[in-house]
Amino acid sequence: MERKRIVSGMRPTGRLHLGHVHGALNNWRSLQEDYQCFYFIADWHALTSEYEHPEIIKESINDILIDWIAIGLNPEESVIFVQSGIKEHAELHLILSMISPLSWLERNPTYKEQLKEVAQRNLYTYGFLGYPVLQAADILMYKAHGVPVGEDQSAHLELTREIARRFNHFYSNVFPLPETLLTPEAKILGTDRRKMSNSYGNAIFISDSEEIVTTTVADMITDPQRARRPDPGRPDFCNVFTFHELYTDKEKVKEIDEGCRSASIGCVECKQMMASSLNEALEPLREKRKELEANPRIIENIIDEGNKKARKIARDTMEEVREVVKI
Amino acid sequence: MERKRIVSGMRPTGRLHLGHVHGALNNWRSLQEDYQCFYFIADWHALTSEYEHPEIIKESINDILIDWIAIGLNPEESVIFVQSGIKEHAELHLILSMISPLSWLERNPTYKEQLKEVAQRNLYTYGFLGYPVLQAADILMYKAHGVPVGEDQSAHLELTREIARRFNHFYSNVFPLPETLLTPEAKILGTDRRKMSNSYGNAIFISDSEEIVTTTVADMITDPQRARRPDPGRPDFCNVFTFHELYTDKEKVKEIDEGCRSASIGCVECKQMMASSLNEALEPLREKRKELEANPRIIENIIDEGNKKARKIARDTMEEVREVVKI
Repeated sequence: MERKRIVSGMRPTGRLHLGHVHGALNNWRSLQEDYQCFYFIADWHALTSEYEHPEIIKESINDILIDWIAIGLNPEESVIFVQSGIKEHAELHLILSMISPLSWLERNPTYKEQLKEVAQRNLYTYGFLGYPVLQAADILMYKAHGVPVGEDQSAHLELTREIARRFNHFYSNVFPLPETLLTPEAKILGTDRRKMSNSYGNAIFISDSEEIVTTTVADMITDPQRARRPDPGRPDFCNVFTFHELYTDKEKVKEIDEGCRSASIGCVECKQMMASSLNEALEPLREKRKELEANPRIIENIIDEGNKKARKIARDTMEEVREVVKI
Repeated sequence: MERKRIVSGMRPTGRLHLGHVHGALNNWRSLQEDYQCFYFIADWHALTSEYEHPEIIKESINDILIDWIAIGLNPEESVIFVQSGIKEHAELHLILSMISPLSWLERNPTYKEQLKEVAQRNLYTYGFLGYPVLQAADILMYKAHGVPVGEDQSAHLELTREIARRFNHFYSNVFPLPETLLTPEAKILGTDRRKMSNSYGNAIFISDSEEIVTTTVADMITDPQRARRPDPGRPDFCNVFTFHELYTDKEKVKEIDEGCRSASIGCVECKQMMASSLNEALEPLREKRKELEANPRIIENIIDEGNKKARKIARDTMEEVREVVKI
């Protein structure tokens, strides 16, 4: 029996950090066991915000692909491709645009939020309003049964379902309605305790060297109430402790927990231990990254193969779409 | 030296009538002498209004192409193609959507007008708002120097120029700014003296038979003040007379003018004469239509060839676009 399909993508707008790892990539890796996965670089989507300075897009694509492979996305199992390599996405986007009510897009809560939040860029464009229509095209193209998304993206996926329903209603039952596979929120925060993000300058990147990780961790904000060394700390309120829970041996985590509460361990020492655990976990990824950077053909081949597989399915879907839309 | 290029298209939403002939096609035919012309069937654009019942689109395409050839568009000279056959239009539309400010589209006067006027269809869709963006893609794809448009379309073309300017400003000077080649307004009206239009049921179609033309002309509204046969008429206020000016010998037009003013000719007789002139003019088109209908391969070949030529240019343009947008 064919495995169920899932589709998910990332916008190439900078290097990947631990927020991506815990918010998406670890989940993507596990999903490969149960699903046929389509993972793609959403470079056209990146243009919605980067259109004034699109250089970052091309720069990021290769780097992200290296991270994906290093972390264990398996190009033998999953279809790994670049959105703009599959022109059919643009065609399906155009056709879906004709049936997508404006009000659905204008009322989309993520849209309103982003217009407010992203003040440094002008997002009042036609393309940014249509972000969810392009997303619907990406997902429906592969007739995905599910989409792994964070809480913040679930309104978008609801829109994809609405658009699919409307298409099926007008023309023919072409698209399954993709289910939401909610990704558990990443518990880790950035070094300053805000959400980890490229634009906040508070991120630890997958591609950071051992030295940079150590320095960055040393600068992390811990329990804000533990102002001086002799103060007892509260691991439950400490971002560094959350990292320990993810990266340090269970036994040792217990010791750290007690040492923090009794002030027998200081923050400096605790961070050094955490940096060391984190570096140990990142080391195999660095090795793999080095190997992939030395052989650019590997990533090129992965994309060539992935695009080929994706294109085949996209062509079949578009034939069906044109057939029922009679265009 | 290469001839300058112009681009224009028609939406396949029904048969072509004399409004199309005098409002566009006669002009298109003449333009072939001075320009390299790209004439296309805008089937994706047709979806903006026909998405609920798209059957009309496919039905109309062949019929319109037959009319085009019958009326003298020359596939040896001009590139005659179908929009949805050139997928690059969808890709350029998507890229242009990223740089097109929403406000430009929302303030577009044609947009506001149509939302009000076309009450029988729900035009509050994302695709309909983006109509001018797709139009910009159609025009810029071929680096048109000019676009023949009616007065009502000139705001759209202004938008194409704005979008081209913005693209050239952000990325590189890829697109010439297409000039407006204003088409003289068609002076003729529909049989009921409103604008000739498929949806008003007041049209005389290129493909109408001799009998239908005669019956339709017999029903035409003439000078509304000439209520009875002995009343003198006013040719300047008579739509039938406008047709005479276009289709009847000059000598005879003079006689009719005088006969109408002196009431020596009645409307019935005048219409019969007009129907006869009109039928004479339409006869060669009917002959040509018959020939093309008997050999469907002719139109198929024209489209295959036209699409091939268009696609070649579209591919070159898109390579350049991707190069400068770095995507």
